[in-house]
Amino acid sequence: MDYNKEINRIVDFIKEIIDNSKAKGIVIGLSGGIDSATTAALCTKAIGKDKMLALIMPCHSLEEDINDAKLVAEHLNIKYIIVNLDKTFDTFISALSPDRVPNKMAQANLKPRLRMCSLYYYANELNYLVAGTGNKSEDDIGYFTKYGDGGVDFLPIQHLYKNEVRKIAKLLGIPDKIINRKPSAGLWKGQTDEDELSSQLGFQVTYDKLDEMLQNIHNNNYDPNDPNYQSLLNLMKKNKHKIQLPPALKRSA
Amino acid sequence: MDYNKEINRIVDFIKEIIDNSKAKGIVIGLSGGIDSATTAALCTKAIGKDKMLALIMPCHSLEEDINDAKLVAEHLNIKYIIVNLDKTFDTFISALSPDRVPNKMAQANLKPRLRMCSLYYYANELNYLVAGTGNKSEDDIGYFTKYGDGGVDFLPIQHLYKNEVRKIAKLLGIPDKIINRKPSAGLWKGQTDEDELSSQLGFQVTYDKLDEMLQNIHNNNYDPNDPNYQSLLNLMKKNKHKIQLPPALKRSA
Repeated sequence: MDYNKEINRIVDFIKEIIDNSKAKGIVIGLSGGIDSATTAALCTKAIGKDKMLALIMPCHSLEEDINDAKLVAEHLNIKYIIVNLDKTFDTFISALSPDRVPNKMAQANLKPRLRMCSLYYYANELNYLVAGTGNKSEDDIGYFTKYGDGGVDFLPIQHLYKNEVRKIAKLLGIPDKIINRKPSAGLWKGQTDEDELSSQLGFQVTYDKLDEMLQNIHNNNYDPNDPNYQSLLNLMKKNKHKIQLPPALKRSA
Repeated sequence: MDYNKEINRIVDFIKEIIDNSKAKGIVIGLSGGIDSATTAALCTKAIGKDKMLALIMPCHSLEEDINDAKLVAEHLNIKYIIVNLDKTFDTFISALSPDRVPNKMAQANLKPRLRMCSLYYYANELNYLVAGTGNKSEDDIGYFTKYGDGGVDFLPIQHLYKNEVRKIAKLLGIPDKIINRKPSAGLWKGQTDEDELSSQLGFQVTYDKLDEMLQNIHNNNYDPNDPNYQSLLNLMKKNKHKIQLPPALKRSA
């Protein structure tokens, strides 16, 4: 892949989306991670920094993550607003689980859903579109929250594997601190994507390994009896509903 | 349309969805309106009342709407939980708009999005699917909140116009009080769908009139110079993004 050409192709795609929708700008959530940093850089390149708004949305998050997100916004010189979701989250959990011990995964998924609500609040107010930050490695396996970080208007890097996002991030001049951070969906403290994915898949996996396996599946170049591939294919099947429209009936003739 | 056959076809569709997903049940939000009542009745018919959970989620709502929603749950004899979203909504608005006058439409859309979050909280906890209550009249024109009431796992009545939903509701024995209620998305007090739609379209419209116009467009049986049809077609075009997956690039060759 010619990464400089790829950057131009993505920039043209973003321009076209904004032109066709007649939106006035783009709102994006910054987590401090490489995907949102790269997406924000591409959007800024496409429409200019004055039409960008970044939201930093801590929800019982580490101070370090907030600082990394600020670093990205300052590096790109785009306007950012911090929306602290701690109180909203706590109030919501009390309303949902008044006399039960809250379920860990249900709680974890609530955070990206509250971030989606926040992004659309600003998008509705300003007539902006919400940029999605999902990449192909996550999307192929459904490693995102349905209607949470998956709830967006367009997806500039959805077609790129994680290792390709890293190369584009370097070319775009994203700070090394952000590029070298351990990827985390920030669902709970200390969570890393690779640990979480390894536990879901039942074998130790890095993003490099995952990308290689996904590309092998894509090229039909793998051993169908390999238990690791079987486990990965099962996860892809189980989460397929996340990358499809909700099923419905056709009208009877 | 043979409405008894149609009921059976929908029931089979719901059974298949639940079987294929290995979900343990269905969670649905009841508003007190005809669409959610009909969808809940169809789901109950498909999987039995013991696998159903209804959420009633007032958010600065009228007492009357809560009572109508309770009436539906009691009529179907399904378990229901009231999740009052008043405090969560207020806390959220304070976090989002600390020193601004909140925008009416941005606020209104936050309510169905918080309801989506609540439904998925229970769906995640119980391994249930979220049933959508959207119908064809709403869906064709995008009259719903993206990732709010549009954020669901499957759509049992999405292929039916509002007047067809009414006929099925009667056959299913939904109480007259629910069938005869003025349709409202409940976005603000006193809101009715027909007033809201008329103001968006710029001409006075009822659901009967809307259904007729949509069917005429579907059959290509209308005057393209009629300003009412032009206005309706513009609205459909503007909201088309709501019924599509977020656009993304294909991988370059």
